Formats: sequence, C-alpha cells, structure tokens
Amino acid sequence: MIKAGIIGGAGYTAGELIRILLNHNYVDLSFVFSTSNAGNLLSDVHQDLLGSTDIRFADTVDFNVDVVFLCLGHGNSTAFLDKNVFSEETIIIDLSNDFRLKPDAEFQGREFIYGLPELNKDEIKQAGSIANPGCFATAIQLALLPLADSKNITSDIHINAVTGATGAGTSLSATTHYTWRDNNFSYYKPFTHQHMGEINQSVKSLQSGFDKEIFFLPNRGNFSRGIFATAYTKFEGDLEAIKKIYTDFYAEAPFTFVSETDIHMKQVVNTNKCLIHLHKHNNQLLITSCIDNLLKGASGQAVENMNLIFGLPQTEGLNLKGSYF
Amino acid sequence: MIKAGIIGGAGYTAGELIRILLNHNYVDLSFVFSTSNAGNLLSDVHQDLLGSTDIRFADTVDFNVDVVFLCLGHGNSTAFLDKNVFSEETIIIDLSNDFRLKPDAEFQGREFIYGLPELNKDEIKQAGSIANPGCFATAIQLALLPLADSKNITSDIHINAVTGATGAGTSLSATTHYTWRDNNFSYYKPFTHQHMGEINQSVKSLQSGFDKEIFFLPNRGNFSRGIFATAYTKFEGDLEAIKKIYTDFYAEAPFTFVSETDIHMKQVVNTNKCLIHLHKHNNQLLITSCIDNLLKGASGQAVENMNLIFGLPQTEGLNLKGSYF
Amino acid sequence: MIKAGIIGGAGYTAGELIRILLNHNYVDLSFVFSTSNAGNLLSDVHQDLLGSTDIRFADTVDFNVDVVFLCLGHGNSTAFLDKNVFSEETIIIDLSNDFRLKPDAEFQGREFIYGLPELNKDEIKQAGSIANPGCFATAIQLALLPLADSKNITSDIHINAVTGATGAGTSLSATTHYTWRDNNFSYYKPFTHQHMGEINQSVKSLQSGFDKEIFFLPNRGNFSRGIFATAYTKFEGDLEAIKKIYTDFYAEAPFTFVSETDIHMKQVVNTNKCLIHLHKHNNQLLITSCIDNLLKGASGQAVENMNLIFGLPQTEGLNLKGSYF
Amino acid sequence: MIKAGIIGGAGYTAGELIRILLNHNYVDLSFVFSTSNAGNLLSDVHQDLLGSTDIRFADTVDFNVDVVFLCLGHGNSTAFLDKNVFSEETIIIDLSNDFRLKPDAEFQGREFIYGLPELNKDEIKQAGSIANPGCFATAIQLALLPLADSKNITSDIHINAVTGATGAGTSLSATTHYTWRDNNFSYYKPFTHQHMGEINQSVKSLQSGFDKEIFFLPNRGNFSRGIFATAYTKFEGDLEAIKKIYTDFYAEAPFTFVSETDIHMKQVVNTNKCLIHLHKHNNQLLITSCIDNLLKGASGQAVENMNLIFGLPQTEGLNLKGSYF
Repeated sequence: MIKAGIIGGAGYTAGELIRILLNHNYVDLSFVFSTSNAGNLLSDVHQDLLGSTDIRFADTVDFNVDVVFLCLGHGNSTAFLDKNVFSEETIIIDLSNDFRLKPDAEFQGREFIYGLPELNKDEIKQAGSIANPGCFATAIQLALLPLADSKNITSDIHINAVTGATGAGTSLSATTHYTWRDNNFSYYKPFTHQHMGEINQSVKSLQSGFDKEIFFLPNRGNFSRGIFATAYTKFEGDLEAIKKIYTDFYAEAPFTFVSETDIHMKQVVNTNKCLIHLHKHNNQLLITSCIDNLLKGASGQAVENMNLIFGLPQTEGLNLKGSYF
Repeated sequence: MIKAGIIGGAGYTAGELIRILLNHNYVDLSFVFSTSNAGNLLSDVHQDLLGSTDIRFADTVDFNVDVVFLCLGHGNSTAFLDKNVFSEETIIIDLSNDFRLKPDAEFQGREFIYGLPELNKDEIKQAGSIANPGCFATAIQLALLPLADSKNITSDIHINAVTGATGAGTSLSATTHYTWRDNNFSYYKPFTHQHMGEINQSVKSLQSGFDKEIFFLPNRGNFSRGIFATAYTKFEGDLEAIKKIYTDFYAEAPFTFVSETDIHMKQVVNTNKCLIHLHKHNNQLLITSCIDNLLKGASGQAVENMNLIFGLPQTEGLNLKGSYF
Repeated sequence: MIKAGIIGGAGYTAGELIRILLNHNYVDLSFVFSTSNAGNLLSDVHQDLLGSTDIRFADTVDFNVDVVFLCLGHGNSTAFLDKNVFSEETIIIDLSNDFRLKPDAEFQGREFIYGLPELNKDEIKQAGSIANPGCFATAIQLALLPLADSKNITSDIHINAVTGATGAGTSLSATTHYTWRDNNFSYYKPFTHQHMGEINQSVKSLQSGFDKEIFFLPNRGNFSRGIFATAYTKFEGDLEAIKKIYTDFYAEAPFTFVSETDIHMKQVVNTNKCLIHLHKHNNQLLITSCIDNLLKGASGQAVENMNLIFGLPQTEGLNLKGSYF
Repeated sequence: MIKAGIIGGAGYTAGELIRILLNHNYVDLSFVFSTSNAGNLLSDVHQDLLGSTDIRFADTVDFNVDVVFLCLGHGNSTAFLDKNVFSEETIIIDLSNDFRLKPDAEFQGREFIYGLPELNKDEIKQAGSIANPGCFATAIQLALLPLADSKNITSDIHINAVTGATGAGTSLSATTHYTWRDNNFSYYKPFTHQHMGEINQSVKSLQSGFDKEIFFLPNRGNFSRGIFATAYTKFEGDLEAIKKIYTDFYAEAPFTFVSETDIHMKQVVNTNKCLIHLHKHNNQLLITSCIDNLLKGASGQAVENMNLIFGLPQTEGLNLKGSYF
C-alpha cells in the first residue's frame, strides 16, 4: 500500500483527493493536514464523507509517507516546503502553480515535472516531484497539443472558456454568493489568466517555432463543476486528417477522447475524462474541450500522476461514475 | 410628491424598495442612508440600477421626509430610532420584526400597525407607523386568514415552506455559498421560526378561540427569489364552499388571487402578487400559497402600505412585470 | 463473472445501472435491450459513456444471463415478462412498481421479494426475483422503519419531500422544460403518491397494529438528482434513546447512516447512501432523510440486491465518489 | 389609446409583449391571436398573468387595430401576411427574421424598417412596418456600432455569447429538458448563426468599406433569460477615447449605457437595458454587452419601436423593475 498524505485538507481539491483516495485499492490515506481544522472529522468539512471515513484532520505532518499532495493556495507550496522538508523518498505532487514553469521547477534539489500525462507520460513515470497542471490549462492544452505536435498552429488562437464556482476556491466572495451567481454569467481576467504561462510553454515544447498569440477569455458560469472550452484558429487542412491526428495523439490516453459529435459539459462532470470535438467552418478549425475542473483539472490528474509514478494502471481509482445529471 | 427616505440602503429589501420607488409616479426618493456605503453610487451596490439613477448613498439622515423605510436587521430598528427621532409628521414603515407583535407595537409614542393590507387595511390607512410583515409570515397568513376568519380551523395545521437565498440576507455564509446551495435542499429552524409569533397573533385575532398548534418547517431552496408554502389541516366542509370563502375574503385585495388550478412559484416571482390554491383530499384541506419574498414578502408590501396611508391607489407603482422565466 | 442484461435501456435508471455495472468487478454486461435505440451505441443516448464503452443497444433479449434488470415504466414489466419468459436460473430485478405489494408479488411462479436491504436482507439473499423499491418509498421508509420496529409510531405522520427532475423520467413535459423548472417549486399528487402503498406495507410489517395516517406531500425541486424528505410525528420519548434505536437498527447497513448534525441533500448526491437525522422539538420528533433518487432510490439499490443474491459484499461496485458540488 | 393586436400569442415573446402592454398607459390590447389556444385564458398559457387579466386568446384576427405584433416563428410572418392583409393604417411590427435584410424588406407594398433605435431612430419614427432585430443581433450590434460608426474596425472581430433557454422557444427539445440543461454548457451553430446577416448589414451601413470577418460562437447557458456577449478586435487607439465615442454614440439612448466597471448579465435581466463595457489589453479592445433576450432582444425593443412610431416617450411602459436576483 502506498502511504499518502494531504497538506491543506479543507479545500475543494483536497476534498476530491480524499474522495478518490478512500476508494483507491492501493492507497492508505495516512493523514490530512489542516491547521484550521485540526482535530475535526474530515466529514465535518467534507460533509458527504459522513459514513465513508472516521479520519480526523491532523495537526502535524507525518514525513514518513510515500507520497504527499500539496493542496495549498498558489504561492503557499513554496512557503510550506521551506518549513517542512520531505526526504527524497517521498514523492511530492503539488497542485498549485508554484512549480509549473520551467524556471520555477527546480526547488530544494527536486525537479518538478509538469504532470500532464498526455504530454509527457514517460518523464512523469520517473519523476520524484510533480507540478500538477491548472484546470483551464489542462482543458486548453488537451485542445491544442495535437495541433502543436503536428506543427499546425499557423495563426492566432482564440479561446473562450467557462468554469464552475468551485474554480474560485472555498472562500466566500461576492461572485460566489448564491444570489449573485445563480443564473448569471460574467468574464474575469481577460487575456491575462495565470494559466497562460503553462499553456504557452507546452505548446512551444511541441511546436518550437510557435510565435502566434493565444487569446484566452475565461468566464464564470452558474454551475459548480466543469469547464467548457472552445478554441479556434485558421486551418487550411482537411478536417478528417486533423481528426486522425488528434485520435492518434490520444490513442494511448485512457481519459481523453475525441467525439465525432458535438459535446456538452455534463458528459464529463464527476469523471476524470476530457472530451474533445473538432469542427471546421470555412478555414477555421474549432476545437472544443470539456473536463471536470476538480478531477482531470486537479485532483483526478494528481492521482493519475501518482499511479504512473508508482507503476500502477493509470486509471486505478479513477473509473468514476459520472453524475451526468 | 411624497418625499421618501430609506435607512439601511445596502441590503436586499432596500434594493427592491429603490427599484420600486424610482418608478413610482408619486414618490421622490430623497435619500438612501447607508453607513457602510456613504458616498458611493446606489448602482455600485445595486448594480442593476446603472443607468436608472445617479443617486449616491447618504451619510446623514434627512428628517424632513414624508415617509421613511427602515430596512435594518432585526433588532436594529429600535436602536436606530432611539438615536434618530423623527417627528410625528413622518410616517415610519419598518421592515424588521421589532414592532410586529402587539406587546412591542408601542414605541416613542407611536403605535406600529401590523401592515398586512388583507388583514387590516382600514387601520393601515390611518396609521402613522407600520410594522411590515415577515416574508414567510405573509405567505402563511394569506393561506390561513380566510380559514380563521370563517372559524374553520378546528385542528392542528401542518406547514412546509421553502424560500430563496435572498431570504438569508446579503451577508456571506456557508449556506449562501454558490457551491453549497446550487442544486441543494435543506431545512432550518424547524418549528421555531421567528415568524410564528405574528402568524399566531393574526390567526387569533380572527378566530379568537384558536388553540390548535401550527407546525411550520421552513426550508432553503436553490433559487434566489420566492416562497412556496403548503398548509394542511383537517376540514370536514365542502371544497367549493371554502373556495368561495377565500374568494370573498380576497375580493377587494388587488394582489391576492385564488387559483382554480395548481400553482407554482414562478407565477409570482418579481411581482407583488400572492397566489392561493385550495385542494381537498379526504378530510384534509391543502392550501398552497406563493409570493416573492422580497416584494409581497417585504418591499412591495411596504409600498402597498405607503400607498394606503397616502391615499393613493393600493397598486400604485406595483404593477410589476413578472420575470416568469 | 455474473452475466447481466438490462431491459429498457434508454431511461435514467438504466443509464445509472450501466454506469455502475461497467465498473463492477464481478459483472459482465451482456446486453442492453432497447427497442427504440437498437443498434445505436449506448453512448449515443447516455452520452457521458463516450470513452467508457463501445457496447450497442441490442434488439433481442439474451435469455442466457444470470441476472436481468427491468428498467421499464410502471405497468410494463408485467407485459414484458408475459412475452419474454426467463428460466428460473435467471434472477429478475424489477425497478418498476409492478410487484412491490404483497398481492402483486407472485407472478409466473416467481415470488418477488421487496428489495430494501435495511428491511429484509435475509430474504433478499435467498430471492430469485426482486421488486426494487420506489425512490420516495426508500427515503421515507428509511426514515420510519426504526420507529415502527420499536413500536413508537403512536400518532399520524406528516411527510414533505422534494425530488429532482430525473424523478419524472426522460420524456419531455411541461414541468421538465428548463424554462419552467429553473428556479421554480411546486407540489404534485398531494397525499396520493403511488409509493404510499409500499410505505404502509413495510411500516405495518414492523409495527403490526399500526393504524395511524401517513400524510405525504411530494414536491418538484429545481435540481436533477436527489430526494430530501422530512417526517414528523408525536413522540414523547427521549431523543437520545430514539437515536440509539436508529443507530442500532442501521448498525449493519453499509449505506444508511445517522448524522448527529443537520443534513443537506448534496451530502448523498451521486452516492448510494442514505443519511438520516433526528431532531426533537417539544413532543414532535422530526426525522430527515436524504438519498440520490437514481442510486439508493433505484439503480444503486438494485445492484445492492444483486450483490446480496450473488453472495458478494453488499457494497461491491457501489463505493461511488459523490459529486457533492 | 393605441389599439394593439398580437399574432402568435402562445410563445415567449408574445408573453413578454402581453406583460408589457397590460401595464402600458397608452395601449389597449385588443386581441391576442393563437390558433392552438383560441378560447383559453391568456393566463392558462402565461400563468403568471393570473389576476392580471381575464383576456382570452382570439380565434380571429381583428384588422381594425393601430398596431399588430407578429410573434411567429421565423419564416411564418410572410405566410401569415399573405393570408391576412392589413390596411396601411395598421403598423406592423414583426419579431421574426423575415424582413430584417434589405433584400427582404419590401413586402406587400410595405417597407420594413430595421427596428434598432440606437441605429436608425429617425427612420423608425416614420415607419409603417418594423423588422424587429434578433436577440443576439441586438446585443452584438450594440457592442459594435460605435466602433463601426467611428470607422475603427480594422481587423477581424471575435465574438462569444451565451443565451438562456427561452432563446430556444417554447417547444420541448433535448437541449431544453431540465435534466440536460441544468448545470450544463454547450455551443451551437458555430460561425453560422442566422443573425450574422443583420449584424454585417448594420456594421457595413456605418463603416462602408468594412471587409473584415466577424466570428461568432453562440452558446447555450443554464439559465432562462439573458445574453452575455464579448467581442474583441485589434485596436491601436486610446481606451478613454473609444469610451468617449461609445458614450457619445449612446448619449440619447435611454436604455443603452456604458459601464466603467465590469458588467455581469443579471444587471439587465428583466429590464429593457443594454449594458456595455470597454476594456483594453495590449492592442486588443474587448467589448462586453448584456441584454435580456426577451426584452431588449425582442418584445421590449418592439414596444420601443411602437412608442417611437406613435410619438410617445421611447421609455413608455419600459421602466421595468429588474429582477436582479
């Protein structure tokens, strides 16, 4: 059994990790650390866990674990690791954006590998530390990578995506108040979302001469889970040919699928899947991508990375029943 | 023109009052007082008012108004009036529960009249001060008053009602966070809701020997506006006869209607209406009642009361287009 | 491996069964029969299954299966079995209400056992045919059975419950149109819901002299999944004592839990759990119960029954990750 | 009083028209024609009208009206007018897309004027027939017209917009079923929405040499009312200068406002407003636009057009209280 610990156990991504790991056949959840909730039952915070576990939040970190997941706010992983040094034996999977960019990836003698299995599964298998991708970054990269890999990005890319309220974290704010968000719609951080860095980095790693712009407009949707992203760009090639390129690129990916028909977001909610659809109108290629922001966009992918590192089937613990409705 | 002021201008009920009064033909909105927002535009807080008004929140109270609406939290109206004494010339309409019960109705030489027009329109017309009814209390009383008035309550009454998130006020809380409330349902304050006092008081005022129990279970719904209430009790009489009693009781009420067919909540959302439906199964009479908690349940009714006091048509400014969808 | 077939494969309960069985370690899904969709991919109808299975709907019934689930509309199971006779070797689990009442339970030499494991697990283990309980019936019985079993129902019971739009089936209707149901609330079938029969039958089986009335008011909520039910009745006993009675009653139940704190519906959505909470005010005992109408209220419980019959752990395939948000 | 009739009275836009006209000080609603509902009360179909009117659907058309609104499906207005010829005395306001494009605007000796007051108020005032703009077309044109008018469109424009379920009409369909649409998101008609024609026509009327492309991706949101649209294009000019151009362009528009701060959709729901916001990042100008699809996007604008033609204040009957929540 893999001994696992979670740091920052009260947030959404930690909750999802706990839900997954409690049902994982090869993981023993050693501790869930939360300063604010130490001593409380996990199910006091993640209330759906009532009946599923009697574990309590820990007030100390157990360094004797095989893997530790950092579910801390952006910028806080570095600070935590400064004070809490794990031995090389312990795999670190960090869900923040602290180590995703190459210039940030070296830390405490560790090299954080960008944990997008569809991009670099082999490196992940050898990794001692993982920088788990962002949620929008995952949906968008999975939409673009086969295009980049086949050197087919020849023009600017226009992306519009919408995310659920869990994307904004557990803290209460004006835009997560029910009366504001119910039946509402709005954008935020136009063209400047923090995930642009990792997206550009991955695209360039596959299509080295890439010098076009990626315009990304993120939106707040009135739902709790899910990301629906559309991307389009000029593409003179053949639709069937590019479909084959996508299908081939994802041939070995157990969670990413190309759909022949239009897709909608609830096809993936509460699963670790990513669905991709390709459509061409005149000389524009439209690529649609859907994920669950907390699963393939965060905790599910983190477990995928763990599975790969520990030599388990990539899907172990991740064949989740979708909620669909 | 009636000069009107609003105290506590940043909350939901104040917002609704402003929306109504800006379109009211006989009202001049003199000031909207808010300590926390003084100097800001109304539309900075009530953002749908952009383009509708350039008024700013005042930091002082203008005592030279014809009517003042108190939109303060429960318990705060008394405190406010202790420090801010209006002359007898100024009508006070209080939306809190501070003065609704007879023992609380005398204050500073004023007598607060319970402002439910369907119950005591004549007293309201003569009133100098109004205690505006609670939202659940309005929906439930309108369901029960004709039954009480006809001395037909002979058994316990069982009430279940659900309200929207605006019923909980603007402050952020766990149960108003979008991720919690979206697609969720729960109860609160079982059998002990603070509106029971005014409900019992009104029922007893019409059926003096009333000694049965009213069981009321309030619920939190996953919507923003509206109340849907059901009440049932043993009733051996004839359905058509009791329908006639209800129809007669509300014959002069411009906003309360008896529906021959089943009702649903959105029939009244964003209107000042109350719809009532009567159904009988075996010896149980089931009475359904729907209102918009912020309108007939608060600010709309407050304007009804103002209209009555100032000799205007009761519906002035209140023929609101429902949103319905 | 257990060979399983599904009849009526295009509906909501069939969809959920498929989702569960595809991940079940001991089941091989032999066929999914649907006259209207024969030849199509399962994922053409249950679109979240894209990438999960390449199975197509069958146009013929394979009688050589170990278990068959009937996911037909109420009244249609009888008609189907009249034309399609399975051998005694095949376990039949029927999700309709055709065989739930004792007078209906004998059919074609089979005796349909009422499949509520918390009530009659031992009989289920020996059964060749199962009448799977209704969704409301499950939520309500789990709220009442310990009370009945301890002979504590001494007065009428007042039940109010709300269900999601999946409870109304896949067919399009006025009350399942998005514009109608979004942010709406309404009741239906007051006091006459078809599940009353099985509820009364089970209560009487535990408290034989039961002669009180159960008043049940069902409601349509604006969500897709879930049931939230409240029941109250006069109870002079001690709260802690009755909590112990409930906890003991469900001590061996792997999915039904008594919560010390108030419960809300999303604690159980997309799980096979039932949560129960007990509260006392004066001499009224309030019992709250939550389930997912499609899982514990239908397909999840059907798989529980299958597990019991085939000697598998009751939870096999049913440790589902809740969606929670 | 203006005598008004409505053709096609059972749909969403007819319902909104009725709601507005019943409260309009200068309109007498003569008849509402509906073949499918003839003889029924308006409130049997538009159920929120219970208590507001006792009018019934007519089975014959009264040709003796001052204005008639055609609320028919696209393509059906032509067919209706072929069989039902109104005299020149009767103003026709058509809400379909039958007469919006110049080549279609001449019919039966009438010339249909495109009824977007912000574009051509003077022509509207003189018109005998109006082609009322489409909902998306209204939101998008109001975002683009000042830019076109100032000859500032120098590059392709990228538009993404989301609409509510009422945009799809009253008929039941897979994508308007509650269980599908609740908490879901999807696109439709990528780059080929039928409103592109009128958008391009208006832009070219203001910026004659316009030869760039407008890419428009429409989406289905999980709400009932509202449109949120974003448009961006290369713009080298100064943000404050373009803001002034927009503010000046809409200086006389009583419903279209430029917001200094970010906007969200619910600011305009259940009002006839359009809010516009301008933002610049690097050399991209981002224009956001929100309307209520049934009001400014359909029936509200139709009444605006009627007001202008009959010499009434443009806002008559249209100072609607927003629902906001």
